Amino acid sequence: MSDSANSMWGGRFAGGVDAIMEAINASIGFDKRLYAQDIAGSRAHAAMLAATGIITKADHAAIDAGLQQVKDEIEAGNFQFKTALEDIHMNVESRLKEIIGEPAGRLHTARSRNDQVAVDFRLWVRDQCDAAIAGIDRLMRAFLKQAEAGAAWVMPGFTHLQTAQPVTWGHHMLAYVEMLARDKSRFHDARKRMNECPLGAAALAGTSFPIDRHMTAAALGFDRPTANSLDSTSDRDFALEFLSASSICAMHLSRFAEELVIWSSAQFRFVRLSDSFTTGSSIMPQKKNPDAAELLRAKVGRILGATVALFMVMKGLPLTYSKDMQEDKEQVFDAADNLMLGLAAMEGMVKDMNANREVLAAAASSGFSTATDLADWLVRSLNLPFRDAHHVTGSLVALAEKKGCDLPDLTLAEMQTGHPGITQEVYSVLGVDNSVRSRVSYGGTAPSNVEAQVARWKEALA
Amino acid sequence: MSDSANSMWGGRFAGGVDAIMEAINASIGFDKRLYAQDIAGSRAHAAMLAATGIITKADHAAIDAGLQQVKDEIEAGNFQFKTALEDIHMNVESRLKEIIGEPAGRLHTARSRNDQVAVDFRLWVRDQCDAAIAGIDRLMRAFLKQAEAGAAWVMPGFTHLQTAQPVTWGHHMLAYVEMLARDKSRFHDARKRMNECPLGAAALAGTSFPIDRHMTAAALGFDRPTANSLDSTSDRDFALEFLSASSICAMHLSRFAEELVIWSSAQFRFVRLSDSFTTGSSIMPQKKNPDAAELLRAKVGRILGATVALFMVMKGLPLTYSKDMQEDKEQVFDAADNLMLGLAAMEGMVKDMNANREVLAAAASSGFSTATDLADWLVRSLNLPFRDAHHVTGSLVALAEKKGCDLPDLTLAEMQTGHPGITQEVYSVLGVDNSVRSRVSYGGTAPSNVEAQVARWKEALA
Amino acid sequence: MSDSANSMWGGRFAGGVDAIMEAINASIGFDKRLYAQDIAGSRAHAAMLAATGIITKADHAAIDAGLQQVKDEIEAGNFQFKTALEDIHMNVESRLKEIIGEPAGRLHTARSRNDQVAVDFRLWVRDQCDAAIAGIDRLMRAFLKQAEAGAAWVMPGFTHLQTAQPVTWGHHMLAYVEMLARDKSRFHDARKRMNECPLGAAALAGTSFPIDRHMTAAALGFDRPTANSLDSTSDRDFALEFLSASSICAMHLSRFAEELVIWSSAQFRFVRLSDSFTTGSSIMPQKKNPDAAELLRAKVGRILGATVALFMVMKGLPLTYSKDMQEDKEQVFDAADNLMLGLAAMEGMVKDMNANREVLAAAASSGFSTATDLADWLVRSLNLPFRDAHHVTGSLVALAEKKGCDLPDLTLAEMQTGHPGITQEVYSVLGVDNSVRSRVSYGGTAPSNVEAQVARWKEALA
Amino acid sequence: MSDSANSMWGGRFAGGVDAIMEAINASIGFDKRLYAQDIAGSRAHAAMLAATGIITKADHAAIDAGLQQVKDEIEAGNFQFKTALEDIHMNVESRLKEIIGEPAGRLHTARSRNDQVAVDFRLWVRDQCDAAIAGIDRLMRAFLKQAEAGAAWVMPGFTHLQTAQPVTWGHHMLAYVEMLARDKSRFHDARKRMNECPLGAAALAGTSFPIDRHMTAAALGFDRPTANSLDSTSDRDFALEFLSASSICAMHLSRFAEELVIWSSAQFRFVRLSDSFTTGSSIMPQKKNPDAAELLRAKVGRILGATVALFMVMKGLPLTYSKDMQEDKEQVFDAADNLMLGLAAMEGMVKDMNANREVLAAAASSGFSTATDLADWLVRSLNLPFRDAHHVTGSLVALAEKKGCDLPDLTLAEMQTGHPGITQEVYSVLGVDNSVRSRVSYGGTAPSNVEAQVARWKEALA
Repeated sequence: MSDSANSMWGGRFAGGVDAIMEAINASIGFDKRLYAQDIAGSRAHAAMLAATGIITKADHAAIDAGLQQVKDEIEAGNFQFKTALEDIHMNVESRLKEIIGEPAGRLHTARSRNDQVAVDFRLWVRDQCDAAIAGIDRLMRAFLKQAEAGAAWVMPGFTHLQTAQPVTWGHHMLAYVEMLARDKSRFHDARKRMNECPLGAAALAGTSFPIDRHMTAAALGFDRPTANSLDSTSDRDFALEFLSASSICAMHLSRFAEELVIWSSAQFRFVRLSDSFTTGSSIMPQKKNPDAAELLRAKVGRILGATVALFMVMKGLPLTYSKDMQEDKEQVFDAADNLMLGLAAMEGMVKDMNANREVLAAAASSGFSTATDLADWLVRSLNLPFRDAHHVTGSLVALAEKKGCDLPDLTLAEMQTGHPGITQEVYSVLGVDNSVRSRVSYGGTAPSNVEAQVARWKEALA
Repeated sequence: MSDSANSMWGGRFAGGVDAIMEAINASIGFDKRLYAQDIAGSRAHAAMLAATGIITKADHAAIDAGLQQVKDEIEAGNFQFKTALEDIHMNVESRLKEIIGEPAGRLHTARSRNDQVAVDFRLWVRDQCDAAIAGIDRLMRAFLKQAEAGAAWVMPGFTHLQTAQPVTWGHHMLAYVEMLARDKSRFHDARKRMNECPLGAAALAGTSFPIDRHMTAAALGFDRPTANSLDSTSDRDFALEFLSASSICAMHLSRFAEELVIWSSAQFRFVRLSDSFTTGSSIMPQKKNPDAAELLRAKVGRILGATVALFMVMKGLPLTYSKDMQEDKEQVFDAADNLMLGLAAMEGMVKDMNANREVLAAAASSGFSTATDLADWLVRSLNLPFRDAHHVTGSLVALAEKKGCDLPDLTLAEMQTGHPGITQEVYSVLGVDNSVRSRVSYGGTAPSNVEAQVARWKEALA
Repeated sequence: MSDSANSMWGGRFAGGVDAIMEAINASIGFDKRLYAQDIAGSRAHAAMLAATGIITKADHAAIDAGLQQVKDEIEAGNFQFKTALEDIHMNVESRLKEIIGEPAGRLHTARSRNDQVAVDFRLWVRDQCDAAIAGIDRLMRAFLKQAEAGAAWVMPGFTHLQTAQPVTWGHHMLAYVEMLARDKSRFHDARKRMNECPLGAAALAGTSFPIDRHMTAAALGFDRPTANSLDSTSDRDFALEFLSASSICAMHLSRFAEELVIWSSAQFRFVRLSDSFTTGSSIMPQKKNPDAAELLRAKVGRILGATVALFMVMKGLPLTYSKDMQEDKEQVFDAADNLMLGLAAMEGMVKDMNANREVLAAAASSGFSTATDLADWLVRSLNLPFRDAHHVTGSLVALAEKKGCDLPDLTLAEMQTGHPGITQEVYSVLGVDNSVRSRVSYGGTAPSNVEAQVARWKEALA
Repeated sequence: MSDSANSMWGGRFAGGVDAIMEAINASIGFDKRLYAQDIAGSRAHAAMLAATGIITKADHAAIDAGLQQVKDEIEAGNFQFKTALEDIHMNVESRLKEIIGEPAGRLHTARSRNDQVAVDFRLWVRDQCDAAIAGIDRLMRAFLKQAEAGAAWVMPGFTHLQTAQPVTWGHHMLAYVEMLARDKSRFHDARKRMNECPLGAAALAGTSFPIDRHMTAAALGFDRPTANSLDSTSDRDFALEFLSASSICAMHLSRFAEELVIWSSAQFRFVRLSDSFTTGSSIMPQKKNPDAAELLRAKVGRILGATVALFMVMKGLPLTYSKDMQEDKEQVFDAADNLMLGLAAMEGMVKDMNANREVLAAAASSGFSTATDLADWLVRSLNLPFRDAHHVTGSLVALAEKKGCDLPDLTLAEMQTGHPGITQEVYSVLGVDNSVRSRVSYGGTAPSNVEAQVARWKEALA
């Protein structure tokens, strides 16, 4: 460990820190990603120290210019991060000292690494909430475009991966718009809740310097300073909430990813994915593999894994800061990176995918998919209790299955073996187009509903 | 399987369902907890069917009275739940048919078990959000009472479980009030987001019956009906959000639980827990074990385990309903039960616990806990850069440690070996009471701050 | 709390234990499942106490008969479990005292609830290892039967759910036999590792009574006593290992469950599941839903959730017993129950399922599934480097795709546009039967290989 | 994407792969860690291809020399990894082609990336089992050394973090030796189970080339080839087993880490950690924070998080290879790195730590720690049933507590208020040294036992 690094801890340690300790203890390998947040936090802090008279304006000017230079060096790739300096805070401050000398030592007044890392990390997570919101927004638009185009395209609606009733392509796409809208609102809520500034909590107890925490909070875009210094330096619930919201969103992505994998199989052929998001095989030249969809299906594992990791780290930690909490960042970094990548990849796939309308329509018509329409007709036209109508329909499905035909292929006489009151009119409800058009209940799959929802969402996303 | 149950599925199945299938498939063993929600949903549905003319007023009257009777029977313990009838929906409807006959068969018009279970479960989870909010509220009040009593009691503030700086008992208690307030707001947000009614989505596609979903939504206290029938029957993100919020809250509880376990050890003796929440040993008569605190420390494992379970269940499910989703309820039931129990137990412990003020004060004074105050004094009075002040303080701590004394026990001459400018005035900042009183920065530990925060919270919780 | 229960803890507690504490603290609601293990452990302990002269033979006789009576009462349903008595140990001992009086108080000599619960739970988990092994064994036989019947049936082998190469049904079934065999060996290893007896570790430190731990270990079927009393009472790694092995096994089950769901879709129609493991729909009479398969797909979530829960409970617990560890049992009970149920349900489904041989064969032939065979032929017959052969094959697949035909439908002239050296002989490798028959490398899909592996496994499972 | 990379997939893809796809799809950023395994696998494969006459000896010689050169380049840092080439396999093969030209294209004969990555990854995980075994071994020796030195040092044995009975330092250290021995045996079992060679399974179905899989298996140190090609390319249970064993081991480490954090607090002062594994504070110069112990406490979160991630990825994947499985490596890499680092750091801490014998002894004597010895004396000497003895002891503890003294400080007359038969002899069992010496039951804490166990372990680890 270099002398300069050692001196940060004061003159206390006789022994050195060996390689294992450096490997397990240093965070600079990952927390350098917080450099912009760290410098922004330090600049806000320095400005406040000057405004409150804790440091001189001259020192502030030197610090501010020096920090700008450090930032420029990092962004230009000229900055040498040193593991011996442990973390981003020490790396920045150490370089600042090289540049501006003595005033650098005044920056840490009324501050501690505990509140410094808390504000850095919170700023980073807040940015990721914004990135998630933007990414979800773009993906919603992609689904919306598909919904608009295919508002009236029929396809099989599945339960248990069994054909249940015909639905419209547009309606299916809009289902994901709804899920994503809730995901977006979760990130909005999380962002709002975390938007309090911990800077000024110092190590854990606050400080006796006459600092102005409302000033630094405002400068960094926070709604207000946090109200309890112990809480400020020791909780990471904002990160857990971000991870939880990310896991739910990734779960939603995994569902459409699974649909894409199944739909692009030779047996389904519901969609054709673009070459951009599929790959070939090194040994089987005919393959067109939905790699991106598969990876998206998997991402929820990774993101939930990160969530579990941080929950477990935080479990049972006494107040306030414990070093365990250094394990928070890599988990959140990895989860956020993979969520943003997943949103972008899904957006690309949704934009590019082509529904195979003929296959969808044919599949929608098969499998007795309008059996429910028949049952509903029996209720409406013959006033049968639904349970009886259901029973009659079941027997007619069984008859059709035995004959190897579909429901509309039964003769009226055959229909009447189910119930003598059945008339020719029944055939009008057995077509899939009629079926979907009839489902006009609010939230139902009728093309007219889909169009109305598309219009609503276009306005909302405008 | 009984004939009556079989007939619910229509006439299709020739073979029977054997014991294994019944064991894995039936949900009545746990979903009977949803009976009140199921009956409320059915009554709202029946009222709407009558209002829209889909069923007659007479049928509605019969159904409504019948459902009330079923509810009464269940609550009186006279209802016989049958596994062969699989779930709560079939159990209720089957009994309804016994009571009122034919009209019972009309209740399921324009409905499916898919939207029925979605509304039942959502109502249940919504209730649990309310229960969590109430439980957190009570726990906040308990912490607040401790904070008020001990606004000025000094205790050691820890980082890394090492004495860092003196803080006040009240400030420590308020840290948990802050955490819990965020937990409460998470349940508020979750409740608001889930408060849309899926009833009327039917199996997955909506219905051709002229139903009024806004009417049922209003009758059940929802803000509006859901906007997409596929989404309505196939998502469980509301349950995942409840579980995530519960996990974060349980994580907070685990932290105070750990503190209680440590604080009630013979080595710490910071608190004395009441007999009500401790137990003895079968072999060691002297033991007073903090069992409740230990169990609370563990509960986050159970609740997060439930969260992981449901995430994994939902991963990669194609739309819409799949039977996998039947695994949602037991996880949420168990997590909710344990969260509510945990909140109540923690409330009891916090109310009853006695801080050992003498031990806390003595501990706060030891361990060079005012070293930071010394460093801050050097900055303020001698205008040293903080980093230099830190270095000087480190050398004085090393000196005191070598002498086996505390900082205030060093002579002025010894002090001046650290820096010649040190004056007698320095001793005024080395007392723990002075130390905590000086930390008046917003959010800091000063008793005056604690009193102000207590007042703010009392008003907020009034 | 009743006086008798209170007296177990000695005369120390003045205050009572209120309802919340009872609810959170008592374990009898679930640990009564350990009654047989608890009584077996007590009988072994009592026999040893008598053999070593610590209690009299008369006391032993009374205790042994009394314990037998308690067991009989429990199994006859005549035993009244009391929550006030907290756990199975106290419930049994309290009843024993009622039956035999004073000697009951001698049973707990040289023992503690800490080693008592450790031995009870270990015996239970050991039994579950045996149950898992037996259940896996039966499931392996079911897969083996399918493999034997369909050793030569061709079906598409998938990667990325895209048709890759033809394989045999038998080979696919055997893949699961291999996975299950490893699962079985994991339970064998876990059982062997946990088969050490903690009884006699007492509370944590061992005892000064001249007990014979080898005697109790042998009586309870353990290989030896544990070697360290602190470890014996405070670790639950045996339960975590059981849960981990269960999670891996459940993961395997989830994969075949997913295949069954996909294979029984209208689009795939690869298999027909029996009515016993499928259900109908309340609204869609035509549905035949693969409920059991879906539930099996979900079970891994529940079992992994239990695993995560116990890991989190155990994280960071100082030695030795902490009450947190009471949370171990419900997790293991639930995971074990669901694993055993899952194995049985899967066995039933595998036994009953019918492969749709025609559909499988047709699917195997489509999708250019013998492209690799063509590439391999180019390598073998024309000595092309594999990468070049791959390229040639890719161009021929593209040609066939453009023509809308399959590879064997290309004329020789068309073939030769890929490479002029291609001869008529190439057509011999383009049939799926030839393809699978050719894959005779060890572990390959050739029917002859399948038959040999079936023979090997039948012998191994005999 | 470069032309050369594109050509690996044959001539099928018209469109390019854009930046997002490259970012989500490419694995070279992490799988380059497998370079040594990949090259070893390729060399074994090439040697076998030559031995079986599938390629010429000249081609083999060129390939072998070329692969050696690639390896040298990588290890010298001269190799340029290209993202466009996706993964380690393509990077190596592409460079090989540059070096040796045409024969490079023959290396992939009778092989696929599916079996190639399976063998690479299995070799890597197998190495990590060996590394874990070695690391555990070293840590066991460190604990053993502490145990040997302190075989007779008394310290408090805790349950519920309450003083329970005196134990010996050596006995406490040996508890971890036992846990670690089981951890080691888990890695041994996992290694043995995974030690089958998947190479030659090709894409999924085996191959028609006359390969010799036993030869490649032997060359790579495997016990045998895998027996089913579908299973070989599609399972990752070996990685899950490694992760599970790692999680259990990390859980054990977290427990001692927690003890170290608690023991090094000012309130406990049971141990003094070396400067090498502690750090100071930037604001509180007096702090000596147990950072390494805290990080070790946290590592189980990270490792279990990786475990959960891979389980979730594998859930419900149909056979055989799906791209989801690419998410396996980063999780295992991170878990393995952190486990090995954690074992090394713990070894360093255990070696360096100093038990504070005086504090331990004083703590062992307080808190009525020999109450059990008193109860046992009452059983042995007065023939009281244990439950009665327990009750008597409880009343004497209550008496001592009221008097503010410890048990040995009670007068004989006071003792006799508990039971009139108590004699002077009782005082002999109330000393902590007598107490620990008396616990000679097998596995008990007596110094003589500790010495015997130390001797046994030294021999076992020799």
